[in-house]
Amino acid sequence: MTSPVGLHRVLEPSGVLPQAALRLSTDPAVGADEVRIAIEKLNLDAASFRQLFTKHGGDGDKVRAEVLDIVESRGKMHNPVTGSGGMLIGTVDAVGPDSPLGLKPGDRVATLVSLTLTPLNIIDGLDRWDGLSEQVPAVGYAILFGRSIAAKLPDDLDPELALAVFDVCGAPALTERVVKKYENPTVAVIGGAGKSGSLALAAARRAGAVRTAGIVPVEAERERLVAAGLADVVALADARDPVALSAAVEAALGRRADVTVVCVDVPGCEHGAILSTADGGTVIFFSMATSFAAAALGAEGLAADVTMLIGNGYAPGHAELALDLLREVPGVRTLFEARLAAD
Amino acid sequence: MTSPVGLHRVLEPSGVLPQAALRLSTDPAVGADEVRIAIEKLNLDAASFRQLFTKHGGDGDKVRAEVLDIVESRGKMHNPVTGSGGMLIGTVDAVGPDSPLGLKPGDRVATLVSLTLTPLNIIDGLDRWDGLSEQVPAVGYAILFGRSIAAKLPDDLDPELALAVFDVCGAPALTERVVKKYENPTVAVIGGAGKSGSLALAAARRAGAVRTAGIVPVEAERERLVAAGLADVVALADARDPVALSAAVEAALGRRADVTVVCVDVPGCEHGAILSTADGGTVIFFSMATSFAAAALGAEGLAADVTMLIGNGYAPGHAELALDLLREVPGVRTLFEARLAAD
Repeated sequence: MTSPVGLHRVLEPSGVLPQAALRLSTDPAVGADEVRIAIEKLNLDAASFRQLFTKHGGDGDKVRAEVLDIVESRGKMHNPVTGSGGMLIGTVDAVGPDSPLGLKPGDRVATLVSLTLTPLNIIDGLDRWDGLSEQVPAVGYAILFGRSIAAKLPDDLDPELALAVFDVCGAPALTERVVKKYENPTVAVIGGAGKSGSLALAAARRAGAVRTAGIVPVEAERERLVAAGLADVVALADARDPVALSAAVEAALGRRADVTVVCVDVPGCEHGAILSTADGGTVIFFSMATSFAAAALGAEGLAADVTMLIGNGYAPGHAELALDLLREVPGVRTLFEARLAAD
Repeated sequence: MTSPVGLHRVLEPSGVLPQAALRLSTDPAVGADEVRIAIEKLNLDAASFRQLFTKHGGDGDKVRAEVLDIVESRGKMHNPVTGSGGMLIGTVDAVGPDSPLGLKPGDRVATLVSLTLTPLNIIDGLDRWDGLSEQVPAVGYAILFGRSIAAKLPDDLDPELALAVFDVCGAPALTERVVKKYENPTVAVIGGAGKSGSLALAAARRAGAVRTAGIVPVEAERERLVAAGLADVVALADARDPVALSAAVEAALGRRADVTVVCVDVPGCEHGAILSTADGGTVIFFSMATSFAAAALGAEGLAADVTMLIGNGYAPGHAELALDLLREVPGVRTLFEARLAAD
């Protein structure tokens, strides 16, 4: 019997989850709830690629050789130094009879689970890749488990645009869920001009927020977010300054926020987010720079009766919800396309 | 006008919260929403005392001198190396007309906010303290802000016992609140034999859990928790092993938990807690060893539709609720008293 989280694919050490494993089985035979994907392209995690590139002094042949070696020896693209992986694009070519993922052969998909836990076999020696970019054309296959996640690439959108949306699609899904629990809520999104921030603002408005504020650190972002029209008010504040941030939020919303969403990847935003939030309100932390201890001790020190959520990157239907927002809200699409053009 | 979070007491740098301040004002005149407390005893944070004790090679006079120096120069007992403080016991001696804390002169209280943000003035040179223990008899005063928290020491309980309960009183309050949102929920408490864990188990049962499981790491704890009768099932598992932990929870509850409460202070319990929790369930992390990134990325990698809460040490009425549980549930009291006796 196969395990929905892939325990049956772990070769060593035994008993750990695939992400913690040293080596996975890449047996091409799909289990009852598995899906096999013919790979088209790997997107290496930026931190992982940078480490390899630096280690080999920019020699693409050596970078390629090490990626091949990692995949060959571990059965997955799991950089042992950075601990990170990436994701992949490909076409479904086999589906087990009990797979719950709703995929069929021929579907073009992006995987939304990390390569660090995805069995992977590469058969072309990556001979079309120069080793000098995170985008890796590849021939081979990958295996998805019962509880993996893959999103169909939409026909109407540039795949790069869809991938940028998938990368942050947990944010609008959780924002919507939380905002819907309140009556006529006010919502502040710290870092509202970024990818996750702009989607969170759009989701909050659609979920019934009576007033939304986007908080940004610099004038250029303020102008972009005002032009996008995603927030009722856009305000400038340094999110690391609790007093300044909470004053900006209160001024923008006329009161503290019922829901505060933290989307800025800088450390030290916990206390400001807590102070910006009304009693009985919720703070959703999506920033990976969030300190658990700073949030827990900060709320206690401020006697703040707020619910604090660790932003879960997964929710059922999150990819579709985020794509819908991109399609329906012109301001979201403008911000995303501007970002891709700038990259 | 005074600020409910004490901004008006910050002398430098200006504009930061009291906890982040280098120096606070210890002006004895109470503001409109402030309370002044005549100190009886400081309880230094264990990490702070250990650092001072080690630095001075166990010389109590030098430890005392440094504590006095810190309080004198900073206006608060905020150890600059460990960043931690402690709490204090004393008697209310002045209450501003607008104080929302519900205290009156003569009330004997413990502060539940950290000494790192509490204006403090010591006038006896700590001459009754030998510098060799965390318990510091002291004469002087402290100031509470509008949003500080202080709990009245109950007449019917040993103050040491009450303090031990106050130390973890956020856990049962939040557990109760979350458990009440579910219908006939199952609840797993990881680290169920500890202080916060035993209170969480008692709170879960009182809040309507149909079945509770306490998970502990060693046989001695299993025996203690079984004897206390706080959980329907007690099971042994290493919380750092996701597969073993989730198997133990499922076996104990007959299914995954609707609410999983993490009360063990060891790193690496995030994935096991997530795997132990049913779709639509909630994980409450009370352990300060929790890694924000491990929780966020773990839930995404496991495609787990779970709500993850950062345990907030504050909720309205949390101290009273925890004391009530101690009084009403004999097993809780037994565990707490055994712990105090062992210290």
